[in-house]
Amino acid sequence: MAGRERMQHVPVVRVGDGATSETSTDDVAVEAALEVRLNGQPFSVTMRTPGADRELAAGFLFTEGIVTAAADIVAVHVDPPADVVDVILSADRAAAVAAQRDTRRQVTTTSSCGMCGRPDLASTRLTAPRVGLTRTIDAHAIRALPERLAPLQETFAATGGLHAAALCTLEGDIVDTAEDVGRHNAVDKIIGRRLLAGGLPAGDLLLFVSGRTSFEILQKAWLAGVPLVAAVSAPSSLAIELADEAGITLIGFVRGGRFNIYTHPARIAYGTLEHG
Amino acid sequence: MAGRERMQHVPVVRVGDGATSETSTDDVAVEAALEVRLNGQPFSVTMRTPGADRELAAGFLFTEGIVTAAADIVAVHVDPPADVVDVILSADRAAAVAAQRDTRRQVTTTSSCGMCGRPDLASTRLTAPRVGLTRTIDAHAIRALPERLAPLQETFAATGGLHAAALCTLEGDIVDTAEDVGRHNAVDKIIGRRLLAGGLPAGDLLLFVSGRTSFEILQKAWLAGVPLVAAVSAPSSLAIELADEAGITLIGFVRGGRFNIYTHPARIAYGTLEHG
Repeated sequence: MAGRERMQHVPVVRVGDGATSETSTDDVAVEAALEVRLNGQPFSVTMRTPGADRELAAGFLFTEGIVTAAADIVAVHVDPPADVVDVILSADRAAAVAAQRDTRRQVTTTSSCGMCGRPDLASTRLTAPRVGLTRTIDAHAIRALPERLAPLQETFAATGGLHAAALCTLEGDIVDTAEDVGRHNAVDKIIGRRLLAGGLPAGDLLLFVSGRTSFEILQKAWLAGVPLVAAVSAPSSLAIELADEAGITLIGFVRGGRFNIYTHPARIAYGTLEHG
Repeated sequence: MAGRERMQHVPVVRVGDGATSETSTDDVAVEAALEVRLNGQPFSVTMRTPGADRELAAGFLFTEGIVTAAADIVAVHVDPPADVVDVILSADRAAAVAAQRDTRRQVTTTSSCGMCGRPDLASTRLTAPRVGLTRTIDAHAIRALPERLAPLQETFAATGGLHAAALCTLEGDIVDTAEDVGRHNAVDKIIGRRLLAGGLPAGDLLLFVSGRTSFEILQKAWLAGVPLVAAVSAPSSLAIELADEAGITLIGFVRGGRFNIYTHPARIAYGTLEHG
């Protein structure tokens, strides 16, 4: 099948558990916006990994209750390079959806997923001033993050069902944490607490998250003015792209004393530095 | 702090790697809808774990660009038992948001997160006929799911950054799989493929997902008519609630030959059965 790739090669600095680092490449999962149109009209934007865009649009419209059977869909036009899927509804279904949308539209435009309320691909990004930081951050502060966060993940320890986020000093000391079933909510909770306390932008803090990093996490970090985002798991392609643009150092796979730096690696300082 | 709990005790049937099962209890993370209001008007519904609701609402509005500084927020009224937060904006900010919403509202009401476009708590659930299944499913079919799915998770193996979902026969044979940075997208892709092929409702298939199960996954499974959902990780409280109501057998922690059954356990058959 033609279309966009699901993986992308990116440069990475691999930091070992000693005072070594190696410039290399890594494969990351592609995250890209898909605009779903109904009968040519913008309807929704979702972040997804390219591939099966036609099926994604059909399944999304079905599980949202917009279509109820295959017969409601007359045709699906896919334009992979443009990341657009146009779903042509039957006349009956189009009329029913129009009536439904008039009702729904009055009250809600957005949700915590960080994408909703965005009409089209051009409007998915909010911008903020580029994040600056003059001082360096020691690699040991990054390595120590998981063991510092673990004892604070109370509900995760009991349930295995929560994401955690932490704001830390640039020495790696934890300033605030939150847990939530939604990764984006955990981040919103700690950013909201800073906002209410008058502590934004948080240019002297780093954000650490227990899972993966995607567009929405980097978008939130950028708006909060955080210079570094570190995560236990993998970043998406779009997280890397946004971090690069925002001036944020993005770190992934912080595990077992090692980590990978995907953007702006010059901020990280090592005891003795070797480049591979 | 007063308010709702972040964990909930639930009954569970623990299935071992032999022909044994034990009725017990488990702690699961609470997932519950929070309605965010702006100046008393419904604005957004998000699924979250209770706790820090005030901070979540503030952080969400900030990272969505609705408020830009603490001064934009005059007051935050929290009503935990009702799962509602009302954020009172300054007069200037309220006017700016009203102008912004008029523009955004014209085009988008929803996104793939499964919640967007829902105006309030009462409208978050779509309903479907209760899922029925007369035959039983062998415990061995469930135990074998991870090793059957693993070789098909091509992009995950390379990147560590994708969620996988699979539709399987009730014997555990994989019929279709999808990968995506978004858990809900992976499920939408396989449901969409069935829809376009005229294969819904899928009452003779089970859904297996690589991560956790939350409200949105069960909502999608219910609309697709799937009688069983199994996952490698933990369910949320709301996933369990919805599975119970829908008539879906919900299974979690399918790992190392063991698994936990959270709802409708009578569908699972064992070689020799012992109840603890």
